[in-house]
Amino acid sequence: MFARSSRTPLMFNSLVSPTSQQPWTEPVQVELERVEATLRSAVESSVPRLLEASTNLLEAGGKRLRPCVTLLWAKACGADGDAERMIPVAAATELIHMATLMHDDVIDRSDLRRGRRTANAFWGNKVSVLTGDYVLCRAFDLLVQHGSIEILRILAGVTMAMTESEALQAASEGSVEEWRENYWRIISGKTAGFIQACCEAGAVFAEAEPNHRRAAASYGADLGLAFQITDDLLDLIGRPTATGKRVGSDLKDGKVTLPVLLTLDGCSEEARTDLAELISSRELTDADMERIRALAQATGAVDETRVVAARHSAAAADALTSLPDTPARSGLRELAKQVVERTG
Amino acid sequence: MFARSSRTPLMFNSLVSPTSQQPWTEPVQVELERVEATLRSAVESSVPRLLEASTNLLEAGGKRLRPCVTLLWAKACGADGDAERMIPVAAATELIHMATLMHDDVIDRSDLRRGRRTANAFWGNKVSVLTGDYVLCRAFDLLVQHGSIEILRILAGVTMAMTESEALQAASEGSVEEWRENYWRIISGKTAGFIQACCEAGAVFAEAEPNHRRAAASYGADLGLAFQITDDLLDLIGRPTATGKRVGSDLKDGKVTLPVLLTLDGCSEEARTDLAELISSRELTDADMERIRALAQATGAVDETRVVAARHSAAAADALTSLPDTPARSGLRELAKQVVERTG
Repeated sequence: MFARSSRTPLMFNSLVSPTSQQPWTEPVQVELERVEATLRSAVESSVPRLLEASTNLLEAGGKRLRPCVTLLWAKACGADGDAERMIPVAAATELIHMATLMHDDVIDRSDLRRGRRTANAFWGNKVSVLTGDYVLCRAFDLLVQHGSIEILRILAGVTMAMTESEALQAASEGSVEEWRENYWRIISGKTAGFIQACCEAGAVFAEAEPNHRRAAASYGADLGLAFQITDDLLDLIGRPTATGKRVGSDLKDGKVTLPVLLTLDGCSEEARTDLAELISSRELTDADMERIRALAQATGAVDETRVVAARHSAAAADALTSLPDTPARSGLRELAKQVVERTG
Repeated sequence: MFARSSRTPLMFNSLVSPTSQQPWTEPVQVELERVEATLRSAVESSVPRLLEASTNLLEAGGKRLRPCVTLLWAKACGADGDAERMIPVAAATELIHMATLMHDDVIDRSDLRRGRRTANAFWGNKVSVLTGDYVLCRAFDLLVQHGSIEILRILAGVTMAMTESEALQAASEGSVEEWRENYWRIISGKTAGFIQACCEAGAVFAEAEPNHRRAAASYGADLGLAFQITDDLLDLIGRPTATGKRVGSDLKDGKVTLPVLLTLDGCSEEARTDLAELISSRELTDADMERIRALAQATGAVDETRVVAARHSAAAADALTSLPDTPARSGLRELAKQVVERTG
């Protein structure tokens, strides 16, 4: 448990562009560069629109967090040399993630992601749906060619669970009560479960012993929660230039995340009722957002959210203790730390 | 080659509801009933919206053509007993098909499919996208659990190719020239390639000898073309009560299929220019549709389309000659015949 005062302050360093080396990517930098090449060839298509849309998504960058943890866990569990088979598995995790982003665009009509117009805003629903499908099938195709049945089982299962969480999220839109009931299930399913699966896939790839595989699952689940909770906080209070998204887009999309739930807990009953009505109206002005942000600070909800994220970050780091001391383990530890310290 | 006069007239018998026995389903009737049960449990979800949407799609019925050919080919190539593993593979083919229907709803905004409101018209894009994703992942999950790597490879690859064809179709919407160039590629990818893959999956399941596997691929490709061309014709000239779709919905959606392309070939240059403009305007009235139908009959395009479909039906039947004479082979032969004789 963390005392509130022990939280790490938000630092203004951002989490990674795909080509930039970070302290935690160093042990798998060579492999990550090969993952980029695999991704580029995986989105090849003779149909121009598919190629354009998926290349655009690919070039928008992103953190490549999922391939990174897949590779780090494979190395931390002793996988050596056989990068030939490891690269496509790691690339497949990013393709699955890309597919969910494409389909999320259809779903949320979000106008800005990662600082640029989304594919959907540019191409429309049809291309977003089909590109997502294409990229998802490419992922399974890579896994069929290069993965094991066990890795396929893990990743097919978790993709299904992500879809269920997205559906639960869609069904909860705009309702404070639904979000209060489902917040943990939603973020566990859509983010933490997937990152957990990537870590496990890495461990399975390395034929890790059972306690290391359990450690991978545990690390991944906590890292994913820390990551998502920090994302939710940045959406509320971050600067758009750092996150590349409109600030407050979650609330405008009817998503009532942890910092907002904690704000509601901490404010007067009158303010709570007002806020819940405002949220369900889905018509939040910039002035409303400013008021909510001030309330989030004043009630201590911002600090409290940071504490929760830091607790999961620490739990992720704790899961690493049984592993031998390797550069990969150091990378995983550094990542667990940085994931709550980023600003975008 | 068929002389134009040798074509089989359209008979007013419809192709199957999932539970009804047909001459070609008889050899696999028991298995098809178990496929239905597997489909019902495969769409189970703890998220009510997903469960409702996928159950609705499931209960809308459909021909179950893909599981049927998968099972028939497995039996025709000598698969015996081991239905435990065959059922989920056959069910997975229907789930993949269901996923494409769900995503097609997002794409085409079609209001009516199989005689009922589509999921999309009822639930909206979000649920259609997520239900399609869910059902697709369920399919891969079933294949991972019960299929072989080779069957996974075949079905993941063909799902990707279907997506490419759908994208090509979307890019061709409303353009006669694009459709003229891409018609065969589109229907080969979206329909024939998938049915071919199902037949091959059945043969692979039965560990068929290479020439039988080639026969399965050849049969499936021709059956799929015969099926799709007949579908395209029925969309133009069929009765809505028999097909369960609005007549002319393809043209209204900007799809310029074979009977229309042949109509354009057969009419005067003036009529051709008029018609092409009308098609690209996408604003076809019932009177326009009536005029196009009359033109399709007068130019012989309807008859010609039937001849082309019949040719592929006959080629499918020819592919069966190397197989031993079994009830499954008779079923496949009957299916090849009926697929061009149906009215819905």
